[in-house]
Amino acid sequence: MAVEKELHKSGPYADFFCQGVRVDNTLHLAGQVGMTDTGEVPADLAAQVETAYQNIAGVLAHFGATMDNIVDETFFVTDMQDCMANVPAVFSVREAAYGKKPEVCQTLVGTPALVDPRLKVEIKVVARL
Amino acid sequence: MAVEKELHKSGPYADFFCQGVRVDNTLHLAGQVGMTDTGEVPADLAAQVETAYQNIAGVLAHFGATMDNIVDETFFVTDMQDCMANVPAVFSVREAAYGKKPEVCQTLVGTPALVDPRLKVEIKVVARL
Amino acid sequence: MAVEKELHKSGPYADFFCQGVRVDNTLHLAGQVGMTDTGEVPADLAAQVETAYQNIAGVLAHFGATMDNIVDETFFVTDMQDCMANVPAVFSVREAAYGKKPEVCQTLVGTPALVDPRLKVEIKVVARL
Repeated sequence: MAVEKELHKSGPYADFFCQGVRVDNTLHLAGQVGMTDTGEVPADLAAQVETAYQNIAGVLAHFGATMDNIVDETFFVTDMQDCMANVPAVFSVREAAYGKKPEVCQTLVGTPALVDPRLKVEIKVVARL
Repeated sequence: MAVEKELHKSGPYADFFCQGVRVDNTLHLAGQVGMTDTGEVPADLAAQVETAYQNIAGVLAHFGATMDNIVDETFFVTDMQDCMANVPAVFSVREAAYGKKPEVCQTLVGTPALVDPRLKVEIKVVARL
Repeated sequence: MAVEKELHKSGPYADFFCQGVRVDNTLHLAGQVGMTDTGEVPADLAAQVETAYQNIAGVLAHFGATMDNIVDETFFVTDMQDCMANVPAVFSVREAAYGKKPEVCQTLVGTPALVDPRLKVEIKVVARL
């Protein structure tokens, strides 16, 4: 059963997975982390969240979409206590990334480890076009 | 690229995220936990699962939907051993919440921490209308 | 609000959840693990990944679908260090399972525990038909 996918691949893992896959008007994104294109990882959680959203916005742009298209997000954080202690800073950079009060669902759970030990957060989103 | 969303916001985090976002006939829900509207958290896992499903049913109702509309659920549990030791009680309250053998996919994984240390489970569901 | 679901149930948990639920052209699958139909769990991660994909392909086949229909996958791994140390072996069995460079999004996060202590990975996928 054939399905027509629009793909976006980029970065060091382009051979292994796509950053975005669209079928019809649903767009799935790979989990995005707080690492820049040049491999830099900001030390604090809020800065990593800001970077992760920049990466998300970059993938969305390849599909002609913006942050407004996101409907669902899941945060995986490595240190829930640190996250809850920094909620104002985290939600502030997040609201700036959306440019308004985000109109999305959110699930926030802890994880013992992400793919790089410097990472504090991975954000997985689903968008509708 | 504009998308038309139907939103449901409620509770203390209404400024930060939606409890439900519908586009066309797909409805994403924020992860729901075993905390009542008045902030009470039952001590045991099965009671938290029951409360989480009450919260899920409440969000679904805002979209004219019921538990029958759920297609996928992910359980994040903080204590897998406790969960597996209480499978009969957990699946019993779950079947009662659905009112029958649930016709949904399930993924059950551990998490080291949820947003409140009293919480033992967060349930993230996707529904189709 | 009634929704028409196509279900696939199998295995020891058939009373509790479906392995796959399709509505329209979207197919959700239950998280699949590296356990065979006869309850065997290979010792190493790459072999568990191979088995999990065999289980995924089996569920897809019940809906007339193949690995090509997958758009999104989430890996939950119990030992991220072991996973990163075995990336070549893991991605090799994965590419073999897809029969080509996978055209899917991927999210890879750690989990402290899966439903059986022998399990090292659970893979949750979404497919489009």
